[in-house]
This record gives sequence, C-alpha cells and structure tokens, in this order.
Amino acid sequence: MYYSHNIRVSIQEYITQMLLDAELITLQARGCAVLGAGGGGSPRMGLLAALQAIEECGPVELVDLDDLPDDGLIMPCGMVGAPTVSLEKFGNGKEAEWLRERIEVLTGRPVVALMCTEIGGANGCEPVAWAARMGLPLADADGMGRAFPEMQQVSMHVAGIESSPCVISDEQENVSILYPTNGRWLERMCRSTAVLFGGRAVTSEYLMNASQARTATVRGSVSLAINIGKLLATTSEDPVAQLMEYLHGFQLIEGKIIDVDRQTTGGFVRGSVVVEGLGKNSGRLLRLEIQNENLVALEDGRVLASVPDVITVLDTQSADAITTELLRYGQRVAVVAFPCDPIWRTSGGLNVAGPLAFGYDFEFQMVEDIHHDFF
Amino acid sequence: MYYSHNIRVSIQEYITQMLLDAELITLQARGCAVLGAGGGGSPRMGLLAALQAIEECGPVELVDLDDLPDDGLIMPCGMVGAPTVSLEKFGNGKEAEWLRERIEVLTGRPVVALMCTEIGGANGCEPVAWAARMGLPLADADGMGRAFPEMQQVSMHVAGIESSPCVISDEQENVSILYPTNGRWLERMCRSTAVLFGGRAVTSEYLMNASQARTATVRGSVSLAINIGKLLATTSEDPVAQLMEYLHGFQLIEGKIIDVDRQTTGGFVRGSVVVEGLGKNSGRLLRLEIQNENLVALEDGRVLASVPDVITVLDTQSADAITTELLRYGQRVAVVAFPCDPIWRTSGGLNVAGPLAFGYDFEFQMVEDIHHDFF
Repeated sequence: MYYSHNIRVSIQEYITQMLLDAELITLQARGCAVLGAGGGGSPRMGLLAALQAIEECGPVELVDLDDLPDDGLIMPCGMVGAPTVSLEKFGNGKEAEWLRERIEVLTGRPVVALMCTEIGGANGCEPVAWAARMGLPLADADGMGRAFPEMQQVSMHVAGIESSPCVISDEQENVSILYPTNGRWLERMCRSTAVLFGGRAVTSEYLMNASQARTATVRGSVSLAINIGKLLATTSEDPVAQLMEYLHGFQLIEGKIIDVDRQTTGGFVRGSVVVEGLGKNSGRLLRLEIQNENLVALEDGRVLASVPDVITVLDTQSADAITTELLRYGQRVAVVAFPCDPIWRTSGGLNVAGPLAFGYDFEFQMVEDIHHDFF
Repeated sequence: MYYSHNIRVSIQEYITQMLLDAELITLQARGCAVLGAGGGGSPRMGLLAALQAIEECGPVELVDLDDLPDDGLIMPCGMVGAPTVSLEKFGNGKEAEWLRERIEVLTGRPVVALMCTEIGGANGCEPVAWAARMGLPLADADGMGRAFPEMQQVSMHVAGIESSPCVISDEQENVSILYPTNGRWLERMCRSTAVLFGGRAVTSEYLMNASQARTATVRGSVSLAINIGKLLATTSEDPVAQLMEYLHGFQLIEGKIIDVDRQTTGGFVRGSVVVEGLGKNSGRLLRLEIQNENLVALEDGRVLASVPDVITVLDTQSADAITTELLRYGQRVAVVAFPCDPIWRTSGGLNVAGPLAFGYDFEFQMVEDIHHDFF
C-alpha cells in the first residue's frame, strides 16, 4: 500500500539509497513527532539514542523494500509501554540485538533489515539506533504510517501476516517469546510483559519476507518523516499552515492548554486535554482524548477528528509536535488533523483501529469530510 | 537428595515399576493434600483430571530416576496461579502437551518423563493426567517434597539447574517461552503471565537430564504421597496421631476455625486463619499466615512452626488435609507441622524458602526443636 493517492507523499519523493546520518535523523525525528499523533514516545529520547549510536557505529542505510531480496527476513521493531515511563527509563541499546538473536534462531534465517513498527514518535527514531549498532539497513516503511497504542494496530495485521512469534526484552535481557493465538492476545501478552518490565520493553513481531512486506506495510514513511522535518526546518513563515498544506490536513483550533488529565495506567498513558481558543478561536473549547496517542478531538460533543486519522498537537510558533506525555498547562498550541494512510480507512483497517475499536460509539468520518461539513 | 534421614520415608519404601491407576491416584491425592502445606491447588480437582485421563488413556507408569537413561530429558511441570482460581477455571488437559512440543523443538530432544514440579496439592496429581494423555511415564520425584508458592522455590534452583527456558500456556494455547535472567525474574515473569491468563496457567521450567535430576530433586515423593494415602485409608483410630508418627511431625492445636481472611491478589491467595482450641486446647488461639501455602503458625506472637517445614490443616476426624482456598469458619481441624525435606534446611534452601525469603524477620527453627522447647 504505497501512499498512492495524492494527499500524501508521492512515490517520486522517496528518499532511497540514502545514509541516515546525524543531520537526517534530526530532521526525521521532527517528522516522526508530527506523524506520531502525540504517541510513539518522545522523539527527543529516540533522537538522542540514534545520534549516539550513529556517532559510535556510523550512519544507517535506508533501503526501499524493492531493493531487498524477496525472501529476505524483515524485522519490525519498536518499544511498547507508556511514553511517560520511557522518558525516565531508557533502554541500554542492546535489546533489539537480543531479539534479533532469538529471531534468527527461531527462523533459522538472517535478518536482512530492520523496520520501524510505527513511524510515530521515538519509535520512528530508536530503530535507527538499533540498526546502527547491528550494522543493518532500515527499510523505508513502517506498520502504521503514524503511531497507534496497541500492538495489533498495524498494517501487517490487516494484511493477514502472523503476529506470532513475538519477541520482547527488557533492558536486563529478560526475554520472552510469545505465541499469542490472535492479535488481541498479542496486545494483552505484550502489555502485561511491558508492565512487568517496568512500563517499557522492546518488541518484534509480524516477522515477514521483503516480498510480503512490499504489500503489507506503509511504504515510504521514513522518507515522509524526513520530508516533514525538512519542511519544518526550512519554513519560517506560518509553519503550521505550510505543514497542513503538505499533509492535506486541517487546523482544528489554535489556543492554550487549560487542563491536562493524564494517568499512567495498565501500561498506557490515558487522559484528556482541554484547549481554549485564542484570537479568532476565542470562546471555543476543544477536548482531546488520549490513549498514548490522541484518539479523538471533540467540541461541544461534536467529533472534529478521530482515529484512524492523525490528530497532532503542534507548538504554535515552531509547528513542532508535542507528544502526549509532555502536554502541560499554558502551552500555546495548534491542534491539527490530517488523513491517515488509506489502509486504515478500509473496513479491515477500521475494524482494528477505527473509533469502535477504541470503544467509541460513533462511526469514523474522514477528517476532510468533517472539515467540509463544519468549517 | 534422597529422603535419607530416618524421619521420612526410607528408600526401601519406594514404590517402583508401578502403574498409577484409578486406585493408586486416589490414594496419592490424599497424600499430596497432606504434603501440600495447604497449597498446590485442590487435590480434588487434580484427582478428577487424573481419573478422567486414566479412564480415557490408561494408567501411568511411575519410574525411578535411576531407571531412566542418563541423558533422558525430564520435564518438570505444574500449574501456577492462585488455587482459588483453579477451583473454578479448569485446564483443558492439553496444556502440558503444547509445552512439551515447544520443549522438544527448543531442545531438539524427546521428553522421556514428566515430573511434578511440586508434589503438594493438585500439582501432585494433575501431571498424572498429562502423562496419561501423552503416554509418558512420571518420575518418582518432585522439586519440593511439598508445595511452595513461588517458582524458584524448587530443589533444582538450589542445585544450580538453569530455570530458563520456562514454557507457559493457558487453556487456549496462548504460549510464552520465558528466558528470565534469574529465579526472581522467573517468578515475576511467570506470575505476571499467570495473572494475564486469568489466574491459572501450566508451566515447565528447570529442564534437566535424568542424571542431573537424580541429585537435584526430592526423590520418592510420589511414593511418599501414595504411602500417606494408604495410611489414611487404612487407619480408623486417631488418624492424625498415626500420620504424625509416620511423618515425625507434631500436632500444634486441635480446634475450630473462627476467622478466615483470604484474598486472591497478585496471582496468589493471601491471608490468615485463626483456630480456637477445643477440649484440652481450650483457651488457645493459633494463627496461620498464608501465601497459597501455610507459611507460619503463631501463638501469642511465638512461632510454633514455619516455612520451610510443612504446616498442614487436617480435618479432625478423617485427617484429610484442607487446602487454603477451602478453609472456612467452623471447620473442626488439627493443625500439624512436620519436617520438610532436608534440602530446605540447608543454607541454600533457607535462602530460597526460609522465613527471611518470605519477608519474615525471624530465623528458621526446626519444628522438632520448637516442639522440644515449647511442649
């Protein structure tokens, strides 16, 4: 599922045959923050890990899935847990290597490339650190095109790839290999293990060949993150508007955060945030509901945007994204929403990551349709 | 570590080359209840599972470890969780087979015999059901000579056998393979998985060869359980006294249960029970503290018996043991204590399963020494 429709990055914008060095990963991190819908962990933490690994081990090759051998084993990887925890509890950099060792024994095959399970937040950056340390390339793709809170909310699940086995490690090399009977149990078993491991763990699941990955992932997402970072780095005039133009998204409100209700519970960050409009938005109140990621934006009981579309809170001045664990009273923000990858708007995608999958009782409406109705 | 000192079963009492049929497993279950220190799960549930499996698949061969090939792979197995849960949530009988399949792939070797991880309670009976269904023999040994609440509290741990890998399954075939860094993490990872699996799971860990098992287990414990069951079945006159004579134990009090405080929490049954003395014990109050098993018996702040020695609550009339999840107000009981297997009285054993290991701040005193002091 290429970003084939014109509202997202077009294929010719792919950045291939490229080395991810300190400069590019810094741009990429800004893009991962925007794509993260507030989740995926702090991109700053992921960036620091990647910068250190690149300094020690050299840059990482970014490869297109088409350039990998059909039967090459792709290892999707990322962190699971609550972003509030991973702000304070870092990895030791070796977790993915421990997972790779297990995977190679389990499958009897070498891993040819890592892939971000989710491009959003720290999970779009930290795999670069792991790839640098292992001397492996990173595939220009991910499993979401954004960040989602739950393990089964990946394009590989929608495409019918087996989630099992899932390998998971803490920073002390306590490792589990999970064989869940389905995606729900994958989430439960991973979450429970992540909670036991102190609220942060590294996992790999939905192992697949490059030939499978070509149609089962969201492709070009690392390139997209870098392009977003470049746009923000080179735009001084109204970056929020320019970013929305690039992503075909909408600003839902501009204002000030006046309330943050946030708990770290059951291995997630859960809560809500209220933004009070300023300037021409004066008198408006927008509420965001959060489960690691921003799930729904509500105003007077009306849905302004919802999963699976991407809702991100941006700093009004820089248009840098603020992840959910860092939202606080008084921040001047623009809340924006833009279309998710088309896979999530299919019935298979909505089953896994639509409003109903998160327990909401309304049907998904595309942000561009809501925008058309309301604004 | 044979039961070599004279206070427990002597080697010539071993029951070898024997088929565990409906009659013997019924006797064995009564013995497992006594040896369980109140834990290991309801022997009645384990017995029912074993009787059904024997009826469907035939009896199980009980083998001595000496009669197995040196390099034969022994699979210790048992249930983990809270006994209150396993009263209501049964297995489906196939869990151990799923674990065995994983183990044989992991090790590349066939399992030659099952072994009870703990001889106490249901965990001394249910492996007979699994062995029957797999057509495998059961080793006449276990890892405790009693029941203990935590995973690392086994003689194999004291003997330095690797706990990893540990395989664990629920009744739906959700399976995890755990590679904990040490015994504490084994307990944490298993407990957390058991809680996730609804409070009951089946596990196998501390895999070993028969040659290792010969010195790393408590041997003859299935025979001992059967012998205890035979004694109870054939004794009509004061069975409590006769049982204590056989086990070289002591009756701590005879009376009535007047208080039960019991919670199922964190994957354990925790609480306490108060027994009020009757007859010549009138005016006395004895308190038992419980973590799945009976840990400590206290009277007026004095320790009458403690882990690792075995404290069991017996029905006054039949001398049948009452497991902790079935204790209730008004039961007429005799609380007894008898010496544990000698392994637990070594410094290595006490480190893992002595009073300090359970958070108590007193040193272990052997029940026969306390008895000598107090009575």
